[in-house]
Amino acid sequence: MGKTLAEKIFDSHLRDEPFPGTKVLNIDRVLCHEITTPVAIADLVWRDKDRVFDRTRIKAVIDHVTPAKDSKTATQAKMLRDWARRHDIPDFFDVGHNGVCHALFPEKGFIHPGHTVIMGDSHTCTHGAFGAFAAGVGTTDLEVGILKGVCAFREPATIRVNLDGVLPNGVFAKDVILYVISRLGVNGATDKVIEFRGAVVDQMSMEGRMTLCNMAIEAGGTSGVCMPDQVTVDYLWPFINSEFSSKEAALAEFSQWCSDEDARYVEVLDIDVSTLVPQVTYGYKPDCVKPVSEMAGTPVDQVYIGTCTNGRIEDLRQAAEVLRGRQIAKTVRGIVSPATPKIFNDALAEGIIQVFMDAGFCVTNPTCGACLGMSNGVLAEGEVCASTSNRNFNGRMGKGGMVHLMSPATAAATALTGVITDARTL
Amino acid sequence: MGKTLAEKIFDSHLRDEPFPGTKVLNIDRVLCHEITTPVAIADLVWRDKDRVFDRTRIKAVIDHVTPAKDSKTATQAKMLRDWARRHDIPDFFDVGHNGVCHALFPEKGFIHPGHTVIMGDSHTCTHGAFGAFAAGVGTTDLEVGILKGVCAFREPATIRVNLDGVLPNGVFAKDVILYVISRLGVNGATDKVIEFRGAVVDQMSMEGRMTLCNMAIEAGGTSGVCMPDQVTVDYLWPFINSEFSSKEAALAEFSQWCSDEDARYVEVLDIDVSTLVPQVTYGYKPDCVKPVSEMAGTPVDQVYIGTCTNGRIEDLRQAAEVLRGRQIAKTVRGIVSPATPKIFNDALAEGIIQVFMDAGFCVTNPTCGACLGMSNGVLAEGEVCASTSNRNFNGRMGKGGMVHLMSPATAAATALTGVITDARTL
Repeated sequence: MGKTLAEKIFDSHLRDEPFPGTKVLNIDRVLCHEITTPVAIADLVWRDKDRVFDRTRIKAVIDHVTPAKDSKTATQAKMLRDWARRHDIPDFFDVGHNGVCHALFPEKGFIHPGHTVIMGDSHTCTHGAFGAFAAGVGTTDLEVGILKGVCAFREPATIRVNLDGVLPNGVFAKDVILYVISRLGVNGATDKVIEFRGAVVDQMSMEGRMTLCNMAIEAGGTSGVCMPDQVTVDYLWPFINSEFSSKEAALAEFSQWCSDEDARYVEVLDIDVSTLVPQVTYGYKPDCVKPVSEMAGTPVDQVYIGTCTNGRIEDLRQAAEVLRGRQIAKTVRGIVSPATPKIFNDALAEGIIQVFMDAGFCVTNPTCGACLGMSNGVLAEGEVCASTSNRNFNGRMGKGGMVHLMSPATAAATALTGVITDARTL
Repeated sequence: MGKTLAEKIFDSHLRDEPFPGTKVLNIDRVLCHEITTPVAIADLVWRDKDRVFDRTRIKAVIDHVTPAKDSKTATQAKMLRDWARRHDIPDFFDVGHNGVCHALFPEKGFIHPGHTVIMGDSHTCTHGAFGAFAAGVGTTDLEVGILKGVCAFREPATIRVNLDGVLPNGVFAKDVILYVISRLGVNGATDKVIEFRGAVVDQMSMEGRMTLCNMAIEAGGTSGVCMPDQVTVDYLWPFINSEFSSKEAALAEFSQWCSDEDARYVEVLDIDVSTLVPQVTYGYKPDCVKPVSEMAGTPVDQVYIGTCTNGRIEDLRQAAEVLRGRQIAKTVRGIVSPATPKIFNDALAEGIIQVFMDAGFCVTNPTCGACLGMSNGVLAEGEVCASTSNRNFNGRMGKGGMVHLMSPATAAATALTGVITDARTL
């Protein structure tokens, strides 16, 4: 019997199996941000266990509210900063060098195929795009991870999602994952790994794959995963070229981190994307998804482009393509948050920042910001936001606010008209 | 007996004199932002007086916390936005089009020589740089201003500050005003107008003059004023070229808004700036000012460049000149907030945004932000900030934080070294 990628990673990282079905894994990357990690740090200090298992495998960033918006968030940032300095953690990213964790850490080449990755953040599943097992964890697991470099998980069961056909023009990874979630339901993958396979994934950039894996948790999935391939090697090459004699050698090594042909899946979902149209959420759950045509005309107050789901350069390009030479509606506040300084810089060089500004967008520094209603675009009661983020929970972007999730292209088109709009109709 | 500029403006705008020494003036510009105006709006609504005296003379902007950082600030923004829409106020600047009020409104050409200007903001005195009488007011005065277009003031007494000599290289308007405040003291100009005169002012750009007038309130001044001249005409020309047949005609008209040679001043301060050095504050009051050499070596955690004092293009240029091709210290968070979208755009076109990013600065969208500890760089307990803003009050930028005020050049140099540094020594 073959094994899935997740099973292979579990086997190779197994440290202990305290009882059947629960596996304690060695962890390659413990990722930290300033909202959840300070709680873990404070507890470790209180327990007189203020140590780190390996300062080079811990990566930390201030990203959720940055620069700090008040004394509380300034203190949270300071706790993380002081801790990173105290333990001489080389990869700590402070104001000016920081960005959304799930965009920044991959961009720095920190995540490799076969890695185990944990973080006190639900969208840690993003990193599975590299053929890693990456899962969000709670404070206690994060503490143990920081201290000992291990984490306990249930035996992984995997749902395979085959994405075949050819993505039509104007339909993107975000539309695919929204549709997948609508098929699986918000609890459909609970405690399971979602494996994204098929020609559509093979042809996707790492950016697109990260968008897919990012929202695995929105169907309840522990992690999303994609099979590492040439695209993965090309993306990581600047960071691994001293480890491998050639890209071929890297590909050969990475290819072990693929599910076997005869691996066992708890569920297989076959989707042909060839007829897929842009998708938009309604209501307060990410599986409340409709074709954009059924939502078209819905007025919005704010359009938010950014986040760990869709704040990467490819996303900004897609939005800018729609916005170029146009002005957004007077009734709409447009906000764009490039996810990292590198993305901001690339967008600067490509003239994309200029396009956004000319269109009337507010360009913020890289931050998670409005996505989780913590800064840079919180909604007032009754306001509606078209957003490229990943969660439309009630109150997510501000108490009494409504969030419609969509692709950057749809969000840009919506900004232009002030009502939810299919970019293909402009 | 001649008259001061302030007296001439009072005479020309006099509506009533309810008792000796108190003058009710007609107001040309009622400026509004989202922190103080919603309180006035709510009261007007409650009193069933939700009206505006002249929708074209009211200018409104969301600038203090933008985009909104929480439900409270989102609600404040919404109150201002709804009010501006309800009264069809043409000059309302929302997210994407907004910036720091005292930079944005002059940039839009709203302030002219001879104007009376009020706003629920203490740094309204900035606008006196145009030869206007501009004063910050409380909620009740703001309400009356919005409703009736009038405001009561005491008869203005004027302190004349003669700034003669030639500003040495590396010494700027900010250094001048810090030195002036150290001479006057924080209460030295209470209830008085500070008139900035002399060769140094004549040679200053409008940006420099705004920096001077901006901090008049830090010596207690009701308003700062500069005499309108060719520099004023040139700055305003794009906005007034349909009103005047020529720049000469505009200058002739504006020249009436100058103090007479034999005007009476309550105090005259003569300062030769030729030997002035860069100035830095210590302690918690803006008159606690020392030459930078006496503060040099003081470690800082954060450097903040922006605000209504020093967030204009000239300021960014001065900072960028110091930063170009260099990296800021690892121990420092650098934050720059261009004061308006136009300034951001100009800085983009001049490559200044790139210089800041390359140096390791976080570039935020235009906002008042960290200056008053409301967003984008609030300090944690015990942290120290080198700032181009105007107030070093205890807790101003965050409870338990220390602020050192200085020029953009000194702030940039300080960012590079991590300790307070005279840019001329780099």
